[in-house]
Amino acid sequence: MQRPITVSERNFLNISVDCVVFGFDDNQLKVLLIEQDKLSETHIPMSALPGDHVYIGEDLDEAANRVLKELTGIQGLYLKQFHAFGNPDRTKGEKDSQWLRQVRKDPDAHIVTIGYYSLVRMEDFNPVASSFAKNTDWVDVNDIPDLAFDHNEILDYALEHLRADTENNHISFELLPKKFTLGQLQQLHELILDKKLDKRNFRKSIKKLDELIPLNEKQTGVYHKPAQLYSFERNEDK
Amino acid sequence: MQRPITVSERNFLNISVDCVVFGFDDNQLKVLLIEQDKLSETHIPMSALPGDHVYIGEDLDEAANRVLKELTGIQGLYLKQFHAFGNPDRTKGEKDSQWLRQVRKDPDAHIVTIGYYSLVRMEDFNPVASSFAKNTDWVDVNDIPDLAFDHNEILDYALEHLRADTENNHISFELLPKKFTLGQLQQLHELILDKKLDKRNFRKSIKKLDELIPLNEKQTGVYHKPAQLYSFERNEDK
Repeated sequence: MQRPITVSERNFLNISVDCVVFGFDDNQLKVLLIEQDKLSETHIPMSALPGDHVYIGEDLDEAANRVLKELTGIQGLYLKQFHAFGNPDRTKGEKDSQWLRQVRKDPDAHIVTIGYYSLVRMEDFNPVASSFAKNTDWVDVNDIPDLAFDHNEILDYALEHLRADTENNHISFELLPKKFTLGQLQQLHELILDKKLDKRNFRKSIKKLDELIPLNEKQTGVYHKPAQLYSFERNEDK
Repeated sequence: MQRPITVSERNFLNISVDCVVFGFDDNQLKVLLIEQDKLSETHIPMSALPGDHVYIGEDLDEAANRVLKELTGIQGLYLKQFHAFGNPDRTKGEKDSQWLRQVRKDPDAHIVTIGYYSLVRMEDFNPVASSFAKNTDWVDVNDIPDLAFDHNEILDYALEHLRADTENNHISFELLPKKFTLGQLQQLHELILDKKLDKRNFRKSIKKLDELIPLNEKQTGVYHKPAQLYSFERNEDK
């Protein structure tokens, strides 16, 4: 049931977006965090997902792209919406309230946030902190500190979605490299699922996908026998 | 990019929920629509999904349950959140504006809506219209009229989610009957996917699910040989 509230406690309902940008290399799956700028002597800055308010009249997908760019300099990513988080207490932690009182006109507002995730090769992006972010950092998904607000929950949920999409071979093609060997694709699946996969079974299930297209191209610059490159063909149903 | 707006055009950002309740029987997949009450001589009432604003301080899931109950009398459903819709023009159709001007204090507000869906056996529920709903109706998913706002898009998206979850055998157990024969489950999959499935392949893939539990019970009240009943065991990973 709805909790009783007083008008002075909470006057507004606002909407924000939070971006969970997963970054991978050959061996690691990380997530992009920002560190809040220190606002006063007493303020203890926290790590957080890049996130901020949606403007009136702004589409949610545009807001996610704008906010990520403002805080980290990163742009042009495909960001996939995965869930809305609306618990009225999600911004009521003591450190969170302290921070909101310093940066917001309506620090007690009820903020519903829309979660987006992305998946990128880390070497392709060079995040640079700006706005209220002091630093940016790629942090291992197995080594996440206490984050601001309900950002630990949002991150866990994003990882669940990414893993479920991976298990079902339903990762949005926009999130995958444009060209890959089947070995590289298996390596990425293993990183995301955090377990080894059987090579034969993996290839059997991947090759069932109509959208997997062998390219007329092989790997270059490797010492071993160059492997066949593949791509996913966009499908309107995706 | 964000469209330029004037303050007088759009002063608020509000949040609503919209509920897509799919209902099935042995042969049909329908969706629960409301018809708006006629507000004036010139108002042309439209069909719509049951939906309304979220209260300040109210959790999104609670809001979805409350709104569905207020408009249709239906309660106690499992409603699954599937997507947030935030296009600033989603409530700007002429008929929509006309309706909003009559029922809202801030008819020009930008309204972000959170979509929920459910799946129920139609005979278990008896919707009764109230609040601004004049009628409720179960409408075949293949015969949906023009709906208010972006509700056609929301419904299409809900159906896509339901179908994808069905294809992957990932329908939330809360949405399925508690006890079923494999024939009944196949019939439901066929209704949702709108195609016939091969019995042998269907049983093979369903029986792979660890969560499918044969009950110590058979069908009753049938003329043919009674079939084995099954259930899904809740799994914390779901």
